[in-house]
Amino acid sequence: MSVHEFLASPAEASRRRGPQDRIVMSSRVRLARNLRGFAFPGWAKKSDRQRVLQAINDAALALPQLQGAFMGAMESISTQDKQLLVERHLISREHAARKEGSGLILRQDESLCLMVNEEDHLRMQSLLPGLQIRAAWEAIDAVDTGLEGRVEFAFSPVLGYLTSCPTNVGTAIRVSAMLHLPGLVLADQIQPTIEAVSKLGMAVRGFYGEGTDALGNVFQVSNQRTLGESEPRIVERLEKVLHQLIENEENARALLLEQKPKVIFNHVGRAYGTLANAHIISSKETMNLLSLLRLGVELGLFPGADVALINELFIVTQPAHLQQTSEHKLSADERDVLRASLLRERLRALPPPKAA
Amino acid sequence: MSVHEFLASPAEASRRRGPQDRIVMSSRVRLARNLRGFAFPGWAKKSDRQRVLQAINDAALALPQLQGAFMGAMESISTQDKQLLVERHLISREHAARKEGSGLILRQDESLCLMVNEEDHLRMQSLLPGLQIRAAWEAIDAVDTGLEGRVEFAFSPVLGYLTSCPTNVGTAIRVSAMLHLPGLVLADQIQPTIEAVSKLGMAVRGFYGEGTDALGNVFQVSNQRTLGESEPRIVERLEKVLHQLIENEENARALLLEQKPKVIFNHVGRAYGTLANAHIISSKETMNLLSLLRLGVELGLFPGADVALINELFIVTQPAHLQQTSEHKLSADERDVLRASLLRERLRALPPPKAA
Repeated sequence: MSVHEFLASPAEASRRRGPQDRIVMSSRVRLARNLRGFAFPGWAKKSDRQRVLQAINDAALALPQLQGAFMGAMESISTQDKQLLVERHLISREHAARKEGSGLILRQDESLCLMVNEEDHLRMQSLLPGLQIRAAWEAIDAVDTGLEGRVEFAFSPVLGYLTSCPTNVGTAIRVSAMLHLPGLVLADQIQPTIEAVSKLGMAVRGFYGEGTDALGNVFQVSNQRTLGESEPRIVERLEKVLHQLIENEENARALLLEQKPKVIFNHVGRAYGTLANAHIISSKETMNLLSLLRLGVELGLFPGADVALINELFIVTQPAHLQQTSEHKLSADERDVLRASLLRERLRALPPPKAA
Repeated sequence: MSVHEFLASPAEASRRRGPQDRIVMSSRVRLARNLRGFAFPGWAKKSDRQRVLQAINDAALALPQLQGAFMGAMESISTQDKQLLVERHLISREHAARKEGSGLILRQDESLCLMVNEEDHLRMQSLLPGLQIRAAWEAIDAVDTGLEGRVEFAFSPVLGYLTSCPTNVGTAIRVSAMLHLPGLVLADQIQPTIEAVSKLGMAVRGFYGEGTDALGNVFQVSNQRTLGESEPRIVERLEKVLHQLIENEENARALLLEQKPKVIFNHVGRAYGTLANAHIISSKETMNLLSLLRLGVELGLFPGADVALINELFIVTQPAHLQQTSEHKLSADERDVLRASLLRERLRALPPPKAA
């Protein structure tokens, strides 16, 4: 089965629900590992990278968690499919650019994804809907343990796991969650919130990770340090911060709704009106308006509406996902027209928001 | 009957239809006159202004065209009603600021309106829907002739009618039309068009005359010169220019629809979506979006819709008209909320635009 067939139905993954998913869109734990005796991918010869890829594939094949998973070399995946993987946050933009000697292992439910020979020999991640970083940690820890019995990871008793970039050395863990924080943004409280979270040793980033904008009021919160703290402690600390952020966001929403309901209705109404009636719309504007629509659904302004529809639209309106629906190569202008048409079509089922 | 009762139903005047009203919203002819033997209003004592007002009122009362018209002193009209008169283009902002010694004579169908002691002793205008400047000229000419038999106007055999401002001396006529030119604006052809019209000795101004923005893509085109040309010749020349502008606008619309239909659908759809779903909206944004909605109606994107609805919304969403519907004095913020609510309510009858 090709990754193309794997990715055929975008709805499925985006329709998965999880705890606290009013605010926490997804939880992710990523571990970086390298095989002892081989140069890091950036230094390794092609033949070495291919041996690493083979060794990891062989080990992964034996794991019960990865039975039936897609396993393939990066050069066998089309540019279009790579772009789909990036838009679903399954692989990094950097990994999408890799060719021979790099690989991908992906469970169809998208809950486990392993990048082979990205920056490290192995970047394995568990991705779950809603606030489930503890469960995500347990899932990826099990994969790690399984692999550790079959390959030998580069490990220093003093430093811990060795990684290509020193910022990952130690636990080599990155625990993160995607949060939808329109309330804090509309209440002008997002900047102090980001600063407070940073002081706790957590990083706050945009929708596509480091150095990207917080499109659609979606923020990625993750641990900064990988040294001097155990994995469970990192998970626990982030969980605490996330609970605090959820509370802050809920408070901001409640306060806005109480003190400035018209401002909320206005943002949500205009977002709906534009999404449901535009004939040309960019990806960026779409995300920002979908964010407000999602807020409206969460606040009950669209009785009976399912937030999964909005989550799905976040994904399927992105460039490669739009391209997937077309026979010929689309220009950016054509995508903007197709995106608007898809949105009008899908939002026909959603009646205009009802404000109290 | 007070002017307040006169103005109670804004719908009526805005629902009047006229020839070519796809593009020409209204036609107007204004004549400036002064009574011989009295100083211009700016120089006259209050007692003189009151004698002028009395003389003009007496003369007007005798005219068949003004039977049943409202006739009142400016100090008897509330600030709110004065503002309504300005928003309906019946009196100038300057006249609204006048008090004792100034007056207003207004036919209920709003087709004839006389300002007494504005800049001149008498500014009388005829206002008709659509392209009817010739009919407007004939109507106001008849009033002028009727008055001329009853009062003596300041007239020089060399210069013609004498006026307070030298730019009006001579015929003292201003012939104008309000044009809705969204096609030329969207096609980026409005600037060269304005320049071409200016070279023909015509002035192009915004929605509220001299020095105002072209809100809602509405432009006022009028004659510049009042000396050296007879009134019928001025009317004829402006008529010619208007026919040319109508043709240019129709061409621009047809071309846009043929070459960039998506751009048109996008503008119209977004305007509809915002107007039908906003909860806070300014007067300026409303006019600009209503302009696009009107274009959509004219292009057939709203099957069965009546352009009169849009014309009425242009009027009733303005500040004083909104205030009219409320018991207490509204703040600007409250007006923006009320305006949005009125628009959502009224546009509920209008289904989303249908693009081919």
